[in-house]
Amino acid sequence: MKRYFVVLISFLIVCFETYGQEALWQGEKIISPEIHKDNSVTFRLIAPNAQKVQVTGDFLPAGNSGKVDMMKNENGLWEYTSTPLEPEFYSYSFLVDGLKINDPNNVFLNRDIASLHNVFLIDGGRASLYKVNNVPHGSILQCWYNSPTLQMNRRLTIYLPPFYGTSQKEYPVLYLLHGMGGDEESWMERGRLAQIMDNLIAQGKVKPMIVVMSNGNASQEAAPGESSLGFYKPEMNLPKIDAKSIFTDMNEAKKLLPLLKESDKNIKSFPDIVNFMDQHFRTKKEKSGRAIAGLSMGGFHSMYISKEYPDMFDYVGLFSAAAIVPDVSIPPFENVKDKLKTQFEKKPALYWIAIGKEDFLYKMNENYRRMLDENGYKYTYFETGEGHIWKNWRIYLTEFAPLLFLN
Amino acid sequence: MKRYFVVLISFLIVCFETYGQEALWQGEKIISPEIHKDNSVTFRLIAPNAQKVQVTGDFLPAGNSGKVDMMKNENGLWEYTSTPLEPEFYSYSFLVDGLKINDPNNVFLNRDIASLHNVFLIDGGRASLYKVNNVPHGSILQCWYNSPTLQMNRRLTIYLPPFYGTSQKEYPVLYLLHGMGGDEESWMERGRLAQIMDNLIAQGKVKPMIVVMSNGNASQEAAPGESSLGFYKPEMNLPKIDAKSIFTDMNEAKKLLPLLKESDKNIKSFPDIVNFMDQHFRTKKEKSGRAIAGLSMGGFHSMYISKEYPDMFDYVGLFSAAAIVPDVSIPPFENVKDKLKTQFEKKPALYWIAIGKEDFLYKMNENYRRMLDENGYKYTYFETGEGHIWKNWRIYLTEFAPLLFLN
Repeated sequence: MKRYFVVLISFLIVCFETYGQEALWQGEKIISPEIHKDNSVTFRLIAPNAQKVQVTGDFLPAGNSGKVDMMKNENGLWEYTSTPLEPEFYSYSFLVDGLKINDPNNVFLNRDIASLHNVFLIDGGRASLYKVNNVPHGSILQCWYNSPTLQMNRRLTIYLPPFYGTSQKEYPVLYLLHGMGGDEESWMERGRLAQIMDNLIAQGKVKPMIVVMSNGNASQEAAPGESSLGFYKPEMNLPKIDAKSIFTDMNEAKKLLPLLKESDKNIKSFPDIVNFMDQHFRTKKEKSGRAIAGLSMGGFHSMYISKEYPDMFDYVGLFSAAAIVPDVSIPPFENVKDKLKTQFEKKPALYWIAIGKEDFLYKMNENYRRMLDENGYKYTYFETGEGHIWKNWRIYLTEFAPLLFLN
Repeated sequence: MKRYFVVLISFLIVCFETYGQEALWQGEKIISPEIHKDNSVTFRLIAPNAQKVQVTGDFLPAGNSGKVDMMKNENGLWEYTSTPLEPEFYSYSFLVDGLKINDPNNVFLNRDIASLHNVFLIDGGRASLYKVNNVPHGSILQCWYNSPTLQMNRRLTIYLPPFYGTSQKEYPVLYLLHGMGGDEESWMERGRLAQIMDNLIAQGKVKPMIVVMSNGNASQEAAPGESSLGFYKPEMNLPKIDAKSIFTDMNEAKKLLPLLKESDKNIKSFPDIVNFMDQHFRTKKEKSGRAIAGLSMGGFHSMYISKEYPDMFDYVGLFSAAAIVPDVSIPPFENVKDKLKTQFEKKPALYWIAIGKEDFLYKMNENYRRMLDENGYKYTYFETGEGHIWKNWRIYLTEFAPLLFLN
C-alpha cells in the first residue's frame, strides 16, 4: 500500500513543479478576468515593480481613449473592475509602464495579424451563440486541397455539422471568406464559427450545413506557422504607397495592382475549392445547395466570385464588403456590370448586404445598393451600428445563416 | 480609374490602422526571435521604461539559473543573442522587472496547463521532423464521440494520414495519450504530432496511419475553452495533500484516491474510443492494426489499458511512464500481475519502453523492467539523456512510430 503512494507522490512532484509556476498572491491563485454575477469584470495582474498598469480593450466604453488605469493594492496586485458589460465576446490587453502585454492568468487569446489579445465572453442574448453550449458539436477538419489553377497545395478549415459522420445525407455548403490580413483560421478564432453553427443548428434555426473557410490570400499556402515558411511574423502584404500622391502619380497608383492581382487569382481559382469539396464530401452539388459570404475583402471576393460563376452560388452574403464596381478593364473588374446583370437575371435565392453605420465602407455600400436598385436587382439589406469590427461580422453570420438553403 | 484607387485606399486604411499597432523601433519592424545563419538567436523587446529585462527558456544551457539578462540599447530596445543552438523546438518567455511576459513580436505560443510560452524552431537533424515541410499533409480532425461507459460526449483530436480522403484503404491506428495536466490538444501543440507524422510518412519511414489523441482526464469533456465550462483557468486536479504525513496519516494518503479513480475510468472506458474509431473511420479492426502509447500518466494509461484489453493492441509504447505495479487491490491495480502475464502470453508485437536518465521516474522504470525480465516478458528499451520533458517525448515518437505495423 505504502509503495504506490510513493509512486503517486512522484507523479505529484511534476505536478507541483508546474503548479508552482502559477501566479499566486498571498498564496491564493490569481483569477483574471473574473466575471461577476452582474457582468462586471475584474482584471488582475501581479506586478509589484510596475509604476503604472492599464487595461485596454473593446469592452471599454468609447471616450476614455481606449484604456483605463488599474489600481495597485498592497503587495503589488493591480486591479480594475469594469461596469456591468453587455453580453459579447470581448478582447483586451494590459499596458505595464506602456508595454503592451497579455494577461498571464488568461490562456485564451485571439490573433489579429501580428498581435495577440486576450479574450473573454459575457454570456447572454446573442452572445450565448458564441459560447460552447451543451449541444451536439460539429467537427472541425483542417486539410489540404490541390489547386490546379494556382498549382499549389493549400490549407482549408472545414466545419462538418453534427451527425455528418453517421448520416448518409448530402449537405449544402457555405463558403465563408475572411478579410485582409486574415486566413483560413480567422472565422474559427475571432468569428466563433463552430459555436455559432452548433448553437443555431441545435435550436433548429439553421439547416445543418458544411462551412468551408479557405485562405483568400492566393499566394499563401496556409496560415502563418502552418506552411513550409515556418514560424514568421505575420504581416499585411501591403505595398508601401504614398497615399497623398496616389491620385496624381500613376506610378504610385500602380503599386496597388499586385493587391488586385492577388484578389483576381483567388476569384478565378475558387472553383478548385468547390470541386475539391464536391469530390471528397457529401455535398449538394448544385447551385441551390451553395452559399458564399465574406467580410470586408472577403465580401469583395464573395461578390466577384458569385458574379464570375453565376451558376455556382444561390446565396450571397456581403458583410461590410468592399463593394466596388469600377469602370476599368483591369482584372477582376473586366465587364463587371455585364456579369452582375447575368448573375441577377438568374435570380439568386438571396443576395444579402450588411454593414455598420460607422463603417468606412458605408458610403461605398450605399453607392452599390443604389446601383442595384437602379437596375432592379433584388437584394436584402441589414444594417447595424458601429463599424468594421468582428462584433458586427459575428452578428451578420447569425442573421445570414438562418436564411440559407430554405428552397 | 481614379475611383477604384479611392476604394483601394479605403481598404488600406484598415490595414494601416492594424499595421500601426505593430511594434516599431526607429521606424523598423521588430523581429524577435531572429534566427541567424549560425543558429544563434537574437531576442528583442521594446521596453524603454523597464529597469531589467531577462529572457528565460529551455534553449539556455544549464547552470545559468534559467535566465539571462538582456542588454538595453539606445531608445529602449532590449536585446540578447544566444550562442549557436542545437536544432530543436524551443520555448521561452521574457521577464520584465520580474514580470513574466510573452514576446509581443512572436505570435507562436504553446500552452502548458495555465501558462503560455513562446516557441521557435532551429531546423536541422531530428528537429527537421518537427517543421512543416513541403510534403503531403495529413488532415486534423477535431470531433466528439459518445462514451456510453462515461455517459458523456467527449472531444478527440484525430490525425488522418495524407491521401486518406482519396484512398479506399483501411489504416492502422495509433492511440497516443497525454500526461497529467494535458488534454486532447497536447500532442498536436507541444508534441508536433502532425509535422512528425507528415515528415516520417513522406520519408517512407513510417506506415501511413491514423493517430487518435483522446482526453485522458475522464471527467473532462474537452480541453479548456472547448467545453460548455467555457473559458476558465486550467489547473491540475490535484488534491491538497501534506506530503510529509502521507506515509503516516492514512487520511492524507486517501486524498490521492480520486486521482486513481479518474485514471481507472479512463482505462475502463477506453474501448468506447476504439469502437467509435472502428465505426466511423477506415481502420484496421484487429489487434495487429492497433498501437497505444503515451507519456508519463499517459504511459501509465497505455500500460494499464493494454493489459486490461490484451486482445486490443499489438504495439505498446511507454514514454517516461509512471510504470507502477503495486500489490494493492484498488482499481485499476486489481490483479495487475495476472493481467500482465496474460498480455505477455499473447506476445505483443512490440512492447517499447523509453525514458531519460535524469527522469524522476527512472528508478520506477528500472524496477518495472527488472520485473519484466524476471518473468521473461519481452520488451524493447530506449534510453535518452535528460528528464521528464517534451523534447524527449518528441524523440520517442520519432523512434517508436517507425516500429509500428510492420507485421
